[in-house]
Amino acid sequence: MATVKIWTDEDVVRDPRVKAVFDDIRATRNSDFVNNFWRALANQPDLLAATWTRLKEVMVAPSALDPLTKELIYIAVSTANSCGYCIHSHTAAARAKGMTEAQHQDVLAVVGMAAQTNALVTAMQVPIDPEFQI
Amino acid sequence: MATVKIWTDEDVVRDPRVKAVFDDIRATRNSDFVNNFWRALANQPDLLAATWTRLKEVMVAPSALDPLTKELIYIAVSTANSCGYCIHSHTAAARAKGMTEAQHQDVLAVVGMAAQTNALVTAMQVPIDPEFQI
Amino acid sequence: MATVKIWTDEDVVRDPRVKAVFDDIRATRNSDFVNNFWRALANQPDLLAATWTRLKEVMVAPSALDPLTKELIYIAVSTANSCGYCIHSHTAAARAKGMTEAQHQDVLAVVGMAAQTNALVTAMQVPIDPEFQI
Amino acid sequence: MATVKIWTDEDVVRDPRVKAVFDDIRATRNSDFVNNFWRALANQPDLLAATWTRLKEVMVAPSALDPLTKELIYIAVSTANSCGYCIHSHTAAARAKGMTEAQHQDVLAVVGMAAQTNALVTAMQVPIDPEFQI
Amino acid sequence: MATVKIWTDEDVVRDPRVKAVFDDIRATRNSDFVNNFWRALANQPDLLAATWTRLKEVMVAPSALDPLTKELIYIAVSTANSCGYCIHSHTAAARAKGMTEAQHQDVLAVVGMAAQTNALVTAMQVPIDPEFQI
Amino acid sequence: MATVKIWTDEDVVRDPRVKAVFDDIRATRNSDFVNNFWRALANQPDLLAATWTRLKEVMVAPSALDPLTKELIYIAVSTANSCGYCIHSHTAAARAKGMTEAQHQDVLAVVGMAAQTNALVTAMQVPIDPEFQI
Repeated sequence: MATVKIWTDEDVVRDPRVKAVFDDIRATRNSDFVNNFWRALANQPDLLAATWTRLKEVMVAPSALDPLTKELIYIAVSTANSCGYCIHSHTAAARAKGMTEAQHQDVLAVVGMAAQTNALVTAMQVPIDPEFQI
Repeated sequence: MATVKIWTDEDVVRDPRVKAVFDDIRATRNSDFVNNFWRALANQPDLLAATWTRLKEVMVAPSALDPLTKELIYIAVSTANSCGYCIHSHTAAARAKGMTEAQHQDVLAVVGMAAQTNALVTAMQVPIDPEFQI
Repeated sequence: MATVKIWTDEDVVRDPRVKAVFDDIRATRNSDFVNNFWRALANQPDLLAATWTRLKEVMVAPSALDPLTKELIYIAVSTANSCGYCIHSHTAAARAKGMTEAQHQDVLAVVGMAAQTNALVTAMQVPIDPEFQI
Repeated sequence: MATVKIWTDEDVVRDPRVKAVFDDIRATRNSDFVNNFWRALANQPDLLAATWTRLKEVMVAPSALDPLTKELIYIAVSTANSCGYCIHSHTAAARAKGMTEAQHQDVLAVVGMAAQTNALVTAMQVPIDPEFQI
Repeated sequence: MATVKIWTDEDVVRDPRVKAVFDDIRATRNSDFVNNFWRALANQPDLLAATWTRLKEVMVAPSALDPLTKELIYIAVSTANSCGYCIHSHTAAARAKGMTEAQHQDVLAVVGMAAQTNALVTAMQVPIDPEFQI
Repeated sequence: MATVKIWTDEDVVRDPRVKAVFDDIRATRNSDFVNNFWRALANQPDLLAATWTRLKEVMVAPSALDPLTKELIYIAVSTANSCGYCIHSHTAAARAKGMTEAQHQDVLAVVGMAAQTNALVTAMQVPIDPEFQI
């Protein structure tokens, strides 16, 4: 259960600011499905608009990294931050963008390896090598 | 400062198990430089050997993701886990493997975006959409 | 499901130490409702008493910050720590203390912004400005 | 040391996009001091502009919560995320906005209390009370 | 719900690599029960084999710490990392290895205390005493 | 550098409430050395007294777990929470209470293993087995 109301399509059409964002999400993704994250943010139209605008710039607009690689990084961060919903939505997005089972295994292996060596480094408080200085 | 001794090359040559791992690190990376993480792990030869063996399998052996993508994921996890040393070493490794300034900007943008939406989702306790079910 | 037993009111009346704490929770909050956190802690009466005593000092006793502000900070920390139960209980508490929808939007916006800039700062390992020195 | 270059004022004046953001930071804050976070972000002008624009909306523009309360929430999140730089900059900002020693004690006490009960709740996996349902 | 398929015993017998690991888990634990973690990892046989091999070395093989103490440390880390599944499985494992109610209270008390002082230290950015230098 | 003043012994003697706590720390530990955590907390005498009182109950008073085991759990939590100061102070405390090099290796191995499997479980969102239900 959420700590805020999850907006239905009926709720959305009654608020022009929210409707405008939902229309853009549907047009951008070329799909009628709008997931619960946006339906929860709808309670706060300013935050909804700002978040969608920025997400579109970062994840949808062409940039130096391809869309699938950006989704893999999103899964990695969401895992380290223990965000179950985010892991579900971005694993689904990565699969929709072509992630293979072998690539998923690689993501899991790297995320697990990084978590382990992060913990070892932190527990030993390893000093940064001067060679890493830019 | 570390919570364990950082082994010098003189220390390393005196312990055959540690020397064997350091020799393999140098051969695998084709470089004489061995960074402090391994010099800290040298206090615990079993853990040193197990960690290096697994890191080589995950990060060096050919797999479904290219080496640069795996380094970008490593940076992302290390950032979410606040491991300064790991961020330094894997940002350096990513640059050595060809990460451009534009790609680094993308990593930062995605990591920042993910951290933000992770927090929003968690604060609103958004329920997982049935559409994400596999 | 919990990893410990959740005490019912029938369980509580059978243990005088637990009953004393529950009586004080009800008297302090002027409500018969005692939430599951305390029913889980009841398995460990010493920890229950110490936690309630300290919570009362920090969150209930008059202090430099008003009760609502303290709840907002509690929501923020609970979000960063991914504690779903805590987010639920303290969002409910904040609403009971008068948090408006607009204030909730502000909390979400600040928590999201902080999570994002925290990640950016950490990924870039920004050195502390001497101007921040006290 | 940082993983990116920290831009000096000389570097800034050579890049019109970066200079525009720095000019706005100085005008908005009515101060010549621009802290290292922005000097690190300067390597990525798009990310710099997007981050500053959003920070200004969230933290500077008038909203439902007063500026000091928003800084206290920022300190709380930065602490939970272990971002030393952020804790320094936002503790300094809170003091500049009038945070008293007694208020700081309250922030520390609430942040510590929340961290503790977050851990207890998580360790016991306490189920959410139906009473918290909105 | 999981982001990957949870393998049934019927799935397992069809993949010799997975079956070999499951057979070893059952033999090592002297029990027919194989928990969902391994059934989820079965999608990635290499990762499954590597994880089980290492877990057996760290948690099952005789070493300087007794098996129960290692489970208590596992619970502590899993709590700090907000891994609900892991808290459940390792609390069950600790009880199977003899953890008493009083010991569980101690684990909770120490984990809660550490979380609190971790937050206080971080919020105050306490400098490391030279006396702690090894 | 800290975000608060670090109290010297000269500062301490001027404040009777702080002096009383420092006297008790010295008497309890049978040592003149008082580490910086307490010197930072001295700015907030109520928080100082509450924290020391509780730490003494949890870590010093006899209980179901021996003092060394409690320190190992403290190191584990502090590592997962990325608290460098805490890792230093509790690693030093564990050594003072007899932690051997082999036991330290075990702590590191378990903490690293737990961090890795925590990440794998979270990334796969493994459902809790009914067998773990208490």
